[in-house]
Amino acid sequence: MPELRKDPLIDRWVIISTERSKRGSDWEEKVVHLPSRGFCPFCEGNESRTPPEITAIREPGTSPDQPGWRIRVVPNKFPALKAEGDLQIHQQGIYEIMDGIGTHEVVIETPLHNTQLNELPVAHLVDLIKIFRERIQILQKDPRFRYILIFKNSGYAAGASIEHSHSQIIATPIIPNQVLQEINGFKKYYIKGKQCVLCEIIQQELAEKKRIICWEKEYIAFAPFASRFPFEAWILPRKHQAYFEDIADNSIVELAQILKNVLSLLSGKLNQPPYNLILYNLPRFEKKKYIYHWRIEIIPKLTKVAGFEWGSGFYINPISPEQATEILRKNPD
Amino acid sequence: MPELRKDPLIDRWVIISTERSKRGSDWEEKVVHLPSRGFCPFCEGNESRTPPEITAIREPGTSPDQPGWRIRVVPNKFPALKAEGDLQIHQQGIYEIMDGIGTHEVVIETPLHNTQLNELPVAHLVDLIKIFRERIQILQKDPRFRYILIFKNSGYAAGASIEHSHSQIIATPIIPNQVLQEINGFKKYYIKGKQCVLCEIIQQELAEKKRIICWEKEYIAFAPFASRFPFEAWILPRKHQAYFEDIADNSIVELAQILKNVLSLLSGKLNQPPYNLILYNLPRFEKKKYIYHWRIEIIPKLTKVAGFEWGSGFYINPISPEQATEILRKNPD
Repeated sequence: MPELRKDPLIDRWVIISTERSKRGSDWEEKVVHLPSRGFCPFCEGNESRTPPEITAIREPGTSPDQPGWRIRVVPNKFPALKAEGDLQIHQQGIYEIMDGIGTHEVVIETPLHNTQLNELPVAHLVDLIKIFRERIQILQKDPRFRYILIFKNSGYAAGASIEHSHSQIIATPIIPNQVLQEINGFKKYYIKGKQCVLCEIIQQELAEKKRIICWEKEYIAFAPFASRFPFEAWILPRKHQAYFEDIADNSIVELAQILKNVLSLLSGKLNQPPYNLILYNLPRFEKKKYIYHWRIEIIPKLTKVAGFEWGSGFYINPISPEQATEILRKNPD
Repeated sequence: MPELRKDPLIDRWVIISTERSKRGSDWEEKVVHLPSRGFCPFCEGNESRTPPEITAIREPGTSPDQPGWRIRVVPNKFPALKAEGDLQIHQQGIYEIMDGIGTHEVVIETPLHNTQLNELPVAHLVDLIKIFRERIQILQKDPRFRYILIFKNSGYAAGASIEHSHSQIIATPIIPNQVLQEINGFKKYYIKGKQCVLCEIIQQELAEKKRIICWEKEYIAFAPFASRFPFEAWILPRKHQAYFEDIADNSIVELAQILKNVLSLLSGKLNQPPYNLILYNLPRFEKKKYIYHWRIEIIPKLTKVAGFEWGSGFYINPISPEQATEILRKNPD
């Protein structure tokens, strides 16, 4: 029997329809390799083929845009948004238009072409998280930027155009509507429930146990009750924290560990699936930090978004989060 | 210079970033064929392999679930929603859940396996549109169904699990949030602009001309100003009409013609791209018919939805609607 489940953060319904997983071609694997361009601009030694680096974690004594780095942040060569232009909204008849002001940075996560994020040592992931924290702290000082989004596209089906492991940072001049909706959802819940909705969800997940993928002392990873996608996973601090960039140094090791664990489980059980990783964070100028709770969402791309999802905003998920958790937590035979 | 454009129907911003189209793998074509299962349940002669037909357009003298049909409507064998269950919302701690009540029908558009929708004669498309109209009229009488969505997934990348040309009808027990948002957007605009927002858009498009793909006396097809996807196309009646199912018999021929024209242009210029087609319609119980204007959206799936889109609800489109229109309207050499 299909079930409708509502996401408690925003008014989004999801259809959990396990029957759909019996369809013929749903689970046929299609690994589509990127065309070999015989050259990777993100590999060590090819530093001159990206725009000059913004920052990097390097061996002592090495120079910018030279080999010797472990993580490198560069401007996107084909940016979705640019630093120039004005912030005015212009009217063209009924339409509104503005210059595409913002930044678009690429974080090259490793100098090695064939190493996936989950294969990097925890200490390396610690450095990566510190880079994310630093870039948010710096970019949020620019008053033109209203929102800073950190995300990762891994694999062709997840929209990566380059295979080499990397994430991206985009700063936008407008708070995206979807982010506003979520913040409003948190506010609405706070008024009703007198606490942060994600704090309450964590309590229920710890009590029910059936959707918890793994945990550390300070972090928890679970499959959300209203998962839109098979094997969707959320990682979040167990204690309330609104701003990701407030994360303490000694807490980053645990976050790196749980991130590695979740990605390794997905990779091991689902044969390195394409996925998107997204950081949901409260913009700094939004001061109501008691209402919001940051999180990392990981969404493997095993199903396609089709006409029904586009037309309704409902998602059809053929694998329940309880099933997904069971599969991820099962010990290998 | 990238541009931010706002959709006038809902508060959705789109980034038109033509620079992004220069990226290496963006335009690499990947045609992934469905696995040949050696058998198609939608082909003529295989009627027994679908659930019993709901309705069909048949040659006189032929029987249900036998050959002799041109269009056939059957229940989806793997439905996302089902007719049984109750309409109560149940609380599970913080979460809300309800039975997945609804219907899920498949409209098999032709008995021929390798014929695409745009290749069917206009008279055949007329019959198809009449079937859509009839199914909406019948399903909307069921008080359990709050919204009826008609859509089509064509091609693997668009989420089709079966290659044989078909569309789908899903009735849901809740008005999807996205539909509500759009209706509210229409209402908001009506209060401000004293007319239907799409009526005003049509006037501006007819004046500017640069996004009009083609037209008939009663219908217009254009690339929307804030297109989320390359070659996105909207088809709508030039005269205000809220409910698709109110379309008159003598008007259906023109709608069939413009639908065929738009799909043929996309197929010809973009080599039969995967696409989703979605009908946006006002639910019947919503009586404010002066505010809403039905439309058909066609979205070719040439780009991938990636982390940025998931995290922000912003869409990055590497082809402007003006460029797309120019390409579609250009005469073949």
